[in-house]
Amino acid sequence: MTAAATHTSTPVAVLGLGAMGQAIAGAFLAAGHPTTVWNRSPGKGEQLVERGAVRAGSVGEAVRASEVVVVCLLDQTASRAVLDPYAADLRGRVLVDLTSDTPQRAREAAAWAEKEGLDYLDGAMMVNVPMVGTPEALVFLGGSADAYERSRPTLAALGGQVTHLGADHGLAAAYDLAVLDFFWTSMSGLVHAFALAQAEGIKAADLVPYLNGNGGLLASIAPAMAADADGGRYPGDADNLVMDTAGVTHVLHAAEHHGLDASALRAVKSVADRAIARGHGADGWTATIEAVRSPA
Amino acid sequence: MTAAATHTSTPVAVLGLGAMGQAIAGAFLAAGHPTTVWNRSPGKGEQLVERGAVRAGSVGEAVRASEVVVVCLLDQTASRAVLDPYAADLRGRVLVDLTSDTPQRAREAAAWAEKEGLDYLDGAMMVNVPMVGTPEALVFLGGSADAYERSRPTLAALGGQVTHLGADHGLAAAYDLAVLDFFWTSMSGLVHAFALAQAEGIKAADLVPYLNGNGGLLASIAPAMAADADGGRYPGDADNLVMDTAGVTHVLHAAEHHGLDASALRAVKSVADRAIARGHGADGWTATIEAVRSPA
Repeated sequence: MTAAATHTSTPVAVLGLGAMGQAIAGAFLAAGHPTTVWNRSPGKGEQLVERGAVRAGSVGEAVRASEVVVVCLLDQTASRAVLDPYAADLRGRVLVDLTSDTPQRAREAAAWAEKEGLDYLDGAMMVNVPMVGTPEALVFLGGSADAYERSRPTLAALGGQVTHLGADHGLAAAYDLAVLDFFWTSMSGLVHAFALAQAEGIKAADLVPYLNGNGGLLASIAPAMAADADGGRYPGDADNLVMDTAGVTHVLHAAEHHGLDASALRAVKSVADRAIARGHGADGWTATIEAVRSPA
Repeated sequence: MTAAATHTSTPVAVLGLGAMGQAIAGAFLAAGHPTTVWNRSPGKGEQLVERGAVRAGSVGEAVRASEVVVVCLLDQTASRAVLDPYAADLRGRVLVDLTSDTPQRAREAAAWAEKEGLDYLDGAMMVNVPMVGTPEALVFLGGSADAYERSRPTLAALGGQVTHLGADHGLAAAYDLAVLDFFWTSMSGLVHAFALAQAEGIKAADLVPYLNGNGGLLASIAPAMAADADGGRYPGDADNLVMDTAGVTHVLHAAEHHGLDASALRAVKSVADRAIARGHGADGWTATIEAVRSPA
């Protein structure tokens, strides 16, 4: 806290008190910032108020009480609806929208902010709720370097790695969605693996130790796969798509045998089959990127 | 090597010289076992022969030269086609089929082996090719404890963790497929994330550091998710399905915006939407298991 002590007097507003918004407001409070909170529906954030946050009666009240306005809502549609009536109040402050949405919509929001004459950063919390405010927490921001410099000392409360990616307001969302793409697809695979194991009489908990080893494997091969994906060549040194897809097919058959939903697995197999049909049967799994880029 | 020296004289046959079969034969050779190899199509395994393996002219020749017969083919259909004509030759030896297939087909193979009076273990290599033969390598086996005790000293060459799961011949495949379910779905998400990042002008290699952090997150939350999956309750403490699915939807929209194949993401979202429709909107992601168990 000592190093940041000079910046802890910056008043901050947090609009949106879902799980992530609450964690963000909590991190500002922990760093000593006067923190005003607002949520559309009442009843959220009581713990924050107990810790010293001021509950604003309106968005305008929250905005006018702060120098940095942090937004964390469901999507950009919600952000625009909440912010648009208060554009005049936002002028001269730094608006930091950490709401998750697409890069395209972040750029649309930036165009709105520019039209309104607002200093705007579009950001993404690249960590889950419990990690907010820790040294490991990663926060990505895109937008003007000037707005970043002005808000950086305040945003440092959110985590140890608050990173400005560049002037493109879509960059944070682009990284965020690519990570979420991997994350939610993997989470879907994790839950499906639990269901398949249970259908075979194996507890999900008994499967976990072996999944972790597998997760480690993925982390270790991801850099080489990325190099293949960037280079456009996919040598099948340790695997090949024909064998890989045979494995996927076995999983699919077992899932269908047990009457489980197999729609994601069928999609995975279909993409791999298309890559094989395009001549990538002897290549590694990364060759499926060619089929991802050319939908059926 | 010293500790295993007393067992290194057991003659072994390896049928099937794909990447995994070659790694398996190489591990036997490295441990000092007289190793006979066979592959349906010629030209594979030259390096093994250079290292001292004997190439058999037929399956029968390979089987008769060995005490432990290890099979690593494309699937159980291939295994049966290769082994059935040599059932008489296999009697008295231990047949270890490491071919990947479903639990059901492993049990069908066990029924065939019992009818033929064969000592049979069905196994699964729970590691990728480069890890075969290392102390970290995990090999699962199901079948009679007696066959396992007889072959264990020999199979120890395959890795540091050769584990007998029980008498059920389907167990190794069940664990294997559940792990592969997670693995290939995650691999699909990884390649898709690369494609999405590239479509936004981000190199796959630049995304990797953030994916690794995310993989670590998955490993850290998997035990709690498994407990929820086993317990049938899915408290949304740090996430909830409605917010999670909003994230998935953003990824889906971005993928569609860039013209990428989004079939797997649509399947992931559809399962989550069904879980929400069944009243799990305030629960955590693990609640999607209810929708996995009840296909649309």
